[in-house]
Amino acid sequence: MFMDVLNDETYMRLAIDMASKAKGQTDINPVVGCVVVNDGRIVGLGAHLKRGEGHAEVHALSMAGPAAEGATVYVTLEPCSHHGRTPPCCERIIEAKAARVVVACTDPNPVVAGRGIAKLREAGIVVEVGLLGSESEKMNEAFNTFITTRRPFVTVKSAMTLDGKIATKTGDSRYVSGPESREFVHTLRHQNMAIMVGAQTALADDPELTTRLQVPAVHPIRIVVDSKLRLPLDAKLLRERISPVIVLTTEGADANKRQALEAAGAQVLNCGSGPQVDLAEAMRLLGEQEIASILLEGGGKLNGAMLEQSLVHKVILFIAPKIIGGAASPSSFDFEGFERMAEAIELTRMTVEQIGNDVCIVGYPAYGDRVSGAE
Amino acid sequence: MFMDVLNDETYMRLAIDMASKAKGQTDINPVVGCVVVNDGRIVGLGAHLKRGEGHAEVHALSMAGPAAEGATVYVTLEPCSHHGRTPPCCERIIEAKAARVVVACTDPNPVVAGRGIAKLREAGIVVEVGLLGSESEKMNEAFNTFITTRRPFVTVKSAMTLDGKIATKTGDSRYVSGPESREFVHTLRHQNMAIMVGAQTALADDPELTTRLQVPAVHPIRIVVDSKLRLPLDAKLLRERISPVIVLTTEGADANKRQALEAAGAQVLNCGSGPQVDLAEAMRLLGEQEIASILLEGGGKLNGAMLEQSLVHKVILFIAPKIIGGAASPSSFDFEGFERMAEAIELTRMTVEQIGNDVCIVGYPAYGDRVSGAE
Repeated sequence: MFMDVLNDETYMRLAIDMASKAKGQTDINPVVGCVVVNDGRIVGLGAHLKRGEGHAEVHALSMAGPAAEGATVYVTLEPCSHHGRTPPCCERIIEAKAARVVVACTDPNPVVAGRGIAKLREAGIVVEVGLLGSESEKMNEAFNTFITTRRPFVTVKSAMTLDGKIATKTGDSRYVSGPESREFVHTLRHQNMAIMVGAQTALADDPELTTRLQVPAVHPIRIVVDSKLRLPLDAKLLRERISPVIVLTTEGADANKRQALEAAGAQVLNCGSGPQVDLAEAMRLLGEQEIASILLEGGGKLNGAMLEQSLVHKVILFIAPKIIGGAASPSSFDFEGFERMAEAIELTRMTVEQIGNDVCIVGYPAYGDRVSGAE
Repeated sequence: MFMDVLNDETYMRLAIDMASKAKGQTDINPVVGCVVVNDGRIVGLGAHLKRGEGHAEVHALSMAGPAAEGATVYVTLEPCSHHGRTPPCCERIIEAKAARVVVACTDPNPVVAGRGIAKLREAGIVVEVGLLGSESEKMNEAFNTFITTRRPFVTVKSAMTLDGKIATKTGDSRYVSGPESREFVHTLRHQNMAIMVGAQTALADDPELTTRLQVPAVHPIRIVVDSKLRLPLDAKLLRERISPVIVLTTEGADANKRQALEAAGAQVLNCGSGPQVDLAEAMRLLGEQEIASILLEGGGKLNGAMLEQSLVHKVILFIAPKIIGGAASPSSFDFEGFERMAEAIELTRMTVEQIGNDVCIVGYPAYGDRVSGAE
């Protein structure tokens, strides 16, 4: 738009904008932005940039200095009330003598969950909640899931042709989607704490699974689902020690290969004693390791298995304007499938966008009564 | 928009609007709209409504009467110059003493193709060509193809899940897409001269293949591709004699069954002597019968075969926000397929729209160097 009308929303949008740009660099912490306004001028700006370092409000109030007195503080997430790695932000706001706090949404973290707002009100500060609330919530959808379930928020990404194929019948998939879509996928790698693929993909493509963009970016932790420990010791993702590698396997996997992989720098996690990796157990273990978000770039089998077990929270699908044919050409979700169309897993809150020549569809699977991992 | 700025485009848009609403009722003729404006007021409106009856210009000039003298005539297609079922429109415009004619696009019909415009100019009328030309052309894309190739313009319509399936592994397809998409499909049936399905669909679903909308509408000619004449004599589409039925078969098909089908009201056409209907030959024969446009609602096999032989001009794909799974669940284009992703048939001029909860993708296959039926 050419001109913003100056109002509460203007400042909250700026706070959201700062926060959203920090997505991918705050570890398991939410992204938060803060704008302090006094006497008609912005006097402080801040965002939470790194776990263990200053919160958005602290940065913004420091910048404001004495100008924070009587000011309005716009903050995208409820100020914290607990002593974590840093002192509680609501105390800092009270000390600074702010007059009014506008909060986009409450903190789902059980140790905050409304207590921050209550403390501010007790101190006589006017608090308003809900402005651009759903936008702020969406920005932290992964954090919100992790903090309440202690399981990673899983986003599956797939690229398919108009006839629903992710590769040709011979397995060729270079490339399904266009360069703009692929650049967006690397942005997703930056924004997620980990990337996950199956052993089959690791063997077939020998990928690095790093973030390659025009600017330096954060590389995700690399996770390989490898029930039989087939990952070769000279795989690129082991040689490129740019970020940790986690191999998910089973108790019965070969002990020597496990040792060799560990010697090569990988962490090997046992997920159940069955012939296949127990994916629900895997998510529990990864949650314990504080992996809050995973970008799943599996082949059809891994995507299908994760979806079937209700472990996928979000679906991002790129559809390229081409038709490839072939009954044996693989699909994005290769699982047993349902007998009746009415049983299909529906996507809710779907959005559609054109990216270059591709169509990008985003949605959230609704598992309903199914055995639930993700909901 | 709240207010139109009054200019040439305003009137041409009105002419296009009238014409486009007549889509489906002009047989092999193009849809055309006309607006006559004199002294700052609309004095005549017209559209071509039925083959063999008045052209748009004639209707509009009749309404204008003497007010056509000195007027500007806005017409979406070049006025005809030839004596067809009606006298040439450019003569009618010259007689009416119009001062200026604004034409959206020239007529690709080889018997017109610029001659109409030339005649008007010879008579001293100012003629401007090209205003909203591509919109007007698109409105008559089927006519433009038919009039230059004598083959029907084929639009394939399919509805699939997010994982590219048109039915479950058991064949259940009720319903893939939502009610808004299905209503749009019935509008497509009204707008196309014929609908085409495979014998398999006719057997499995026993469809009527009629146009069912909230208002009465035109029913398409019903075409069944039936190499072995498996269509039962008590099929609904034979019993409901609401519009003609054409059965496409092969020379070797059973003569008794052919007679029985003809006795039941169907027209049976031989398309080659092979084991399968020769689809290119079928399109030639249907073109001879003046079927200018076909909506292909085939299963994967028929869609795939038509696409593989470059006989499809336009693709309309509804993508429903659901995932059904199943390796055996059928895809929208079931053909041999290409070995390399780079060989895929690309869709050009793609547009994307949300219809209800579905995504509708429209595009035009670019066959390039492939053996070409449609290009």
